[in-house]
Amino acid sequence: MGELFQARTVREAREILGAYASTGCRTERVPLLQALGRRLAKDVTAADPVPGFDRSTMDGFAVRARDTFGASDSLPAYLDVTGEVLMGREAAGHLGTGQAWRIPTGGMLPPGADAVVMVEHTEELDSRTIGVTRPVAPGDNVVRSGEDIAAGAKVLPAGHLLRPQDLGMLAAVGLAEVPVVARPRVGIISTGDEVVEPSCRPGPGQVRDINSYALYGQVAAAGAQPRIYGIVRDDFASLREKLRQVVGECDLVLLSGGSSVGTRDVAAQVLDSLGSPGVLFHGISIKPGKPTVGAVLDGKPVFGLPGHPVSAMVVCELLVLPLLKYGTYLDDPLEFPVRARLSRNMRSSAGREDYIRVRLYREKGEMVADPVLGKSGLISTMARANGLARIPGELEGVEAGDMVDVKLI
Amino acid sequence: MGELFQARTVREAREILGAYASTGCRTERVPLLQALGRRLAKDVTAADPVPGFDRSTMDGFAVRARDTFGASDSLPAYLDVTGEVLMGREAAGHLGTGQAWRIPTGGMLPPGADAVVMVEHTEELDSRTIGVTRPVAPGDNVVRSGEDIAAGAKVLPAGHLLRPQDLGMLAAVGLAEVPVVARPRVGIISTGDEVVEPSCRPGPGQVRDINSYALYGQVAAAGAQPRIYGIVRDDFASLREKLRQVVGECDLVLLSGGSSVGTRDVAAQVLDSLGSPGVLFHGISIKPGKPTVGAVLDGKPVFGLPGHPVSAMVVCELLVLPLLKYGTYLDDPLEFPVRARLSRNMRSSAGREDYIRVRLYREKGEMVADPVLGKSGLISTMARANGLARIPGELEGVEAGDMVDVKLI
Repeated sequence: MGELFQARTVREAREILGAYASTGCRTERVPLLQALGRRLAKDVTAADPVPGFDRSTMDGFAVRARDTFGASDSLPAYLDVTGEVLMGREAAGHLGTGQAWRIPTGGMLPPGADAVVMVEHTEELDSRTIGVTRPVAPGDNVVRSGEDIAAGAKVLPAGHLLRPQDLGMLAAVGLAEVPVVARPRVGIISTGDEVVEPSCRPGPGQVRDINSYALYGQVAAAGAQPRIYGIVRDDFASLREKLRQVVGECDLVLLSGGSSVGTRDVAAQVLDSLGSPGVLFHGISIKPGKPTVGAVLDGKPVFGLPGHPVSAMVVCELLVLPLLKYGTYLDDPLEFPVRARLSRNMRSSAGREDYIRVRLYREKGEMVADPVLGKSGLISTMARANGLARIPGELEGVEAGDMVDVKLI
Repeated sequence: MGELFQARTVREAREILGAYASTGCRTERVPLLQALGRRLAKDVTAADPVPGFDRSTMDGFAVRARDTFGASDSLPAYLDVTGEVLMGREAAGHLGTGQAWRIPTGGMLPPGADAVVMVEHTEELDSRTIGVTRPVAPGDNVVRSGEDIAAGAKVLPAGHLLRPQDLGMLAAVGLAEVPVVARPRVGIISTGDEVVEPSCRPGPGQVRDINSYALYGQVAAAGAQPRIYGIVRDDFASLREKLRQVVGECDLVLLSGGSSVGTRDVAAQVLDSLGSPGVLFHGISIKPGKPTVGAVLDGKPVFGLPGHPVSAMVVCELLVLPLLKYGTYLDDPLEFPVRARLSRNMRSSAGREDYIRVRLYREKGEMVADPVLGKSGLISTMARANGLARIPGELEGVEAGDMVDVKLI
């Protein structure tokens, strides 16, 4: 047990959990319009090229490029207009030397043509003849067949998180139903004899359940399926009964509260009694969020999160959401994508990562991170913040003017 | 009509539309768990203080701070242990001078106490007596009643977009049902005689509808309610009939395609015939996205977006999504929050804002934006990108090493 009580860094905690945890093995097929924010279960490849034909990107005239070489305002290249391309139709005929066909943006090039001259670079002499005033090279103003997506190309890889543009890609290759990883089911339990439902008016010594709702929001925003299991008393039997049920019904479990030392020990004992390998670490070297228990029960991650709302949310951001979004811990270069100038000095302890709530604003074009001060028990400090700045473990503090990496929250 | 054809900057287009458009006047009440991503319809205030009592943030002993002044390892302050606080219960009694009560994290301070000594800073002499080895000041290790949220305080303002931490705030003040602005209904129409449904195999000269699906994703991700109305032919009568229906059923309409000059004019004529003030501008000075028509019909914004998927998505990001998210055009300092170093030279024209698809990655701790090159007709370039970099209108280009502002996509 000795090693368990050694506080882990975030990186270590991810490695330890990643070795045992697996979410997202179930897959399902959903209609294209429901695929946003889901993870692809399989590689998607294109059966046919996109577009399926050489396509004009301009209103103008389809031509053979070589017929325009040397053309200029003073010496236009004269071409016979022998046809017109209609939108959505195959060109009826063949474009010969010295000929031009009218073509709209998006139209299909007639066989024989290899470029399009913009209408602005032509002069109409009569209804059958144009003068081209600028030369074009083969392929000019044309999207070639397969230029967007080649036939047989891998369009998107398994595991990819589908964004709006990816729905466009899937539409382009005609995927009306998309194979995706099932949304992880996340069970949320609050513990504590002092905690009451938000709909109750708290009596003396009681507080409303904040964590279940904040965690529900984080889990839902990450594209998983949260379910609130309510408040459970801080004793071995109650906790064990509830946890057994929730672990049976969910893919991942968040237990929050029980931040006092005794209660944490009860939670750890319960977790060790319910499956293998049980508790993997006890404490992480971050502030806020230190009193975190990480466990895996038969492949399902179970987190004992701190009771303070800010601490619970920070640990959820760092250890839970990556697992829900990607099914594993990736090295995500965009996890803390915003670089901002800190507005004041902040102390930190070496050997501990600090996560500071900040209010981001822009000053002279530059992002500034203004720390939101206050205890980690105050949810109002999270509501005032719109970012979380990371102070690396090796620093003893940061000074006003230092640059910090920030995650938007 | 002359002024209409003068291309507008993004800022001008927002000002012009903002003066006429209004989305989000309807409101509704939703259960707290469904409020994520919604906009508050009213200010929320707290009826009672949170927490409702002085609360310990540590396991330890509730004391009168002045009884510990001067305490040290060599000269502890001895106190009589005369009570114990139970979680979720009101303290039964009063803490007198020279006394200490055991208290768990989250417990309610007994009347008379004003601070908590951490258990680590005490030594237990016998079951009735402790020695305090460090002094505490009044309020140490205590969250005071109302320190998180004061009674009567405005918790969150009308118009606020609800994030996970805000659900926590609303739970804290006991708001089980939340007054929110109704999700804007967004009708999406694709035009073009060459466009077919994704489920069809395109014939010669035909392409699948990409824009409806990419726009659907953008609108859904912004928290609005998209609805696809299918593909309409590029003629005045078909377009007018369909648009009349969609404007009647939705709060905002996106029409995409019809990127050829003739078709754009048809769309503009239809828009002018359907309500007032009709078309407000015709063309914006950005690349990609220039051939954009902005209209308002009886308070409802209608956008004629370009047919090229990249152009349509860029204009949607800039002009449509802010309106859906905030109901108006705010000056959002976090719109392009990531500052990254450009990996190569890019040309631009002065007087035109450029939006460059980029692939963001991290190099030596710094964000680098690598342009994804390709025509704006290629949806694959959007799928390869994870950011959109803005090149301001006054620049003639940017060079490798220049810093650019990027929006994550």
